[in-house]
Amino acid sequence: MRTVKLDLDHAPYDILIARDLLAQVALILPLLPQPRVAIVTNETVAPLYLQPLQHALAQCGVKVETVILPDGEVYKNWETLNLIFDGLLAARVERKTTLIALGGGVIGDMTGFAAAVYQRGVPFIQIPTTLLAQVDSSVGGKTAINHPLGKNMIGAFYQPRLVLADLATLDTLPPREFSAGMAEVIKYGLIDDLAFFEWLEANIDALMARQTEALAYAVERCCQNKARIVAADEKEQGQRALLNLGHTFGHAIESGLGYGVWLHGEAVAAGMVLAALASRELGQVSDADVARIKALIQRVGLPVVAPVLGNERYLDLMAQDKKVDAGTIKFILLRCLGESYIGELERSTVIAALEAGCA
Amino acid sequence: MRTVKLDLDHAPYDILIARDLLAQVALILPLLPQPRVAIVTNETVAPLYLQPLQHALAQCGVKVETVILPDGEVYKNWETLNLIFDGLLAARVERKTTLIALGGGVIGDMTGFAAAVYQRGVPFIQIPTTLLAQVDSSVGGKTAINHPLGKNMIGAFYQPRLVLADLATLDTLPPREFSAGMAEVIKYGLIDDLAFFEWLEANIDALMARQTEALAYAVERCCQNKARIVAADEKEQGQRALLNLGHTFGHAIESGLGYGVWLHGEAVAAGMVLAALASRELGQVSDADVARIKALIQRVGLPVVAPVLGNERYLDLMAQDKKVDAGTIKFILLRCLGESYIGELERSTVIAALEAGCA
Repeated sequence: MRTVKLDLDHAPYDILIARDLLAQVALILPLLPQPRVAIVTNETVAPLYLQPLQHALAQCGVKVETVILPDGEVYKNWETLNLIFDGLLAARVERKTTLIALGGGVIGDMTGFAAAVYQRGVPFIQIPTTLLAQVDSSVGGKTAINHPLGKNMIGAFYQPRLVLADLATLDTLPPREFSAGMAEVIKYGLIDDLAFFEWLEANIDALMARQTEALAYAVERCCQNKARIVAADEKEQGQRALLNLGHTFGHAIESGLGYGVWLHGEAVAAGMVLAALASRELGQVSDADVARIKALIQRVGLPVVAPVLGNERYLDLMAQDKKVDAGTIKFILLRCLGESYIGELERSTVIAALEAGCA
Repeated sequence: MRTVKLDLDHAPYDILIARDLLAQVALILPLLPQPRVAIVTNETVAPLYLQPLQHALAQCGVKVETVILPDGEVYKNWETLNLIFDGLLAARVERKTTLIALGGGVIGDMTGFAAAVYQRGVPFIQIPTTLLAQVDSSVGGKTAINHPLGKNMIGAFYQPRLVLADLATLDTLPPREFSAGMAEVIKYGLIDDLAFFEWLEANIDALMARQTEALAYAVERCCQNKARIVAADEKEQGQRALLNLGHTFGHAIESGLGYGVWLHGEAVAAGMVLAALASRELGQVSDADVARIKALIQRVGLPVVAPVLGNERYLDLMAQDKKVDAGTIKFILLRCLGESYIGELERSTVIAALEAGCA
């Protein structure tokens, strides 16, 4: 088992990575303030993994409530969040009951947000079952729901007490979802880890074949990178924003097409290419660098071309981004391959990148 | 001007108390990360106090957005909270824009919660315009909305950067609202401040006449007491629950009658009498103590008799309380007049108190 420690002042916690962790409830039990949990999952994950987890907990005398939500980014909204509250209140879930998020990024984000605000905060544990959630969204405490006017606009910074990344759950992940998760994996190489980017170029076939050792290494490396960045800037006052590489453009794509048309990872992939193209416009990366980024993204089966929404629509959607400060959109850009920074772009540069990257 | 400091580790702030603070924006300006605010208020308060505040801020070059909500506890729900988000997003309010709550407890609780979760947290300032908000709800960082199955069930601990208690705004408070605020004032005497309880007995006429010196003293004393309790236990792991004296019964009354039928303070007043009656059942306070409590409550024009909801309905509603732990309801009880503690009650004791206190 690989362990990554997320060392936050007030709430350090472990990210455990291995196959078949799901039913090892001995990892969970010591963290429960009372022998009671509420598992939040969705209609896709429940038939696969709810029963073994529920059974193992019940065997140890833990009372288990369950809330099963519809599946998909389109449900990452207040109405679905309220289904969690309805379930918790109907079951009289208390302040010391632990919420467990069993599922992908949407389940993790929504359950985490529910845990942050239900009775002003209850303990929670992440059991991510998608690659995207294991390498990215389950780590670091960002929780949120979408608003019709913007993605992840309503949320909280709220840390789990444990993240259990069971690699065996990736066996059942549909190829499109697996590829979407790879967008965030590649992101870590581009942010500040050229060695990892190069490791990905060399090992991408093993990863796409979901070989356990390659997966374990990639998940651990991503979590280590994320843990380092988050520990230095939990509330995103500065450098944590680097984790949004590809996300400013990506959120505009998701929102512009309607949530769920493109998967988050697909939008981030095309968004990273747009960020690279903008960086090329600034003369910071070469055509060859852009080609390497595109090649890796294509090898994992993700789009390198963004949809045409119209330049004005892109600019308008991005102006809603959470990183906007005094009307200026902040972008995560590449200083060179494997090194990113938070910067601003002239309108003309954004448009040039969009012209080069949309079709 | 009286100043009470709330000394929390990560976010100390001042509560300023005086007449005519509203337009003294020099107190606010140094705290704004950008020259932009969004004032959230309601249809009752806006015609009275929005314009002077807005004007004073604009005079200093601050860009002001406004969100005006319907007035009343019945609107303290997700739908109304979403009106705040809609307004903020439509105006493209950013992470560094400060939210200002201008109004009573409902506006303060909802604006604080909106500030806690909009873009995962933006700065906020409380300008409470009711007695209840000035002595209690605007201080200490508890924010929330109601859920059909329970009061304040969805919320966050989120501290303001400043509380401006302008005593002049109490001039326009309807008598029923003023009386409701007095419930929380009396509460502070009962929790752990017998000297203040006795001061209230001696000065209640001056207070009810809204004499400035008496008001300033009472608001300051309540804020001092609350600041001390909150600083010792921000997240309500223990002693902060004392601030809920009368609230377990009170929330059951509010929820049982339907939010808004009784004002919060009215329900708390009757709830404090029920808590005193339960404490008398335990032999901890005398009939004479209960009579003194009732007398003071009656002198401020508040109910001392709780509505008949049925004992089982009371018990059922209280079992939803946030202070329930492993199925056991926690009550705030009186050890003696002016000293409270967190305890449990036998079912028979609760019923005896309800039988004695409802009509």
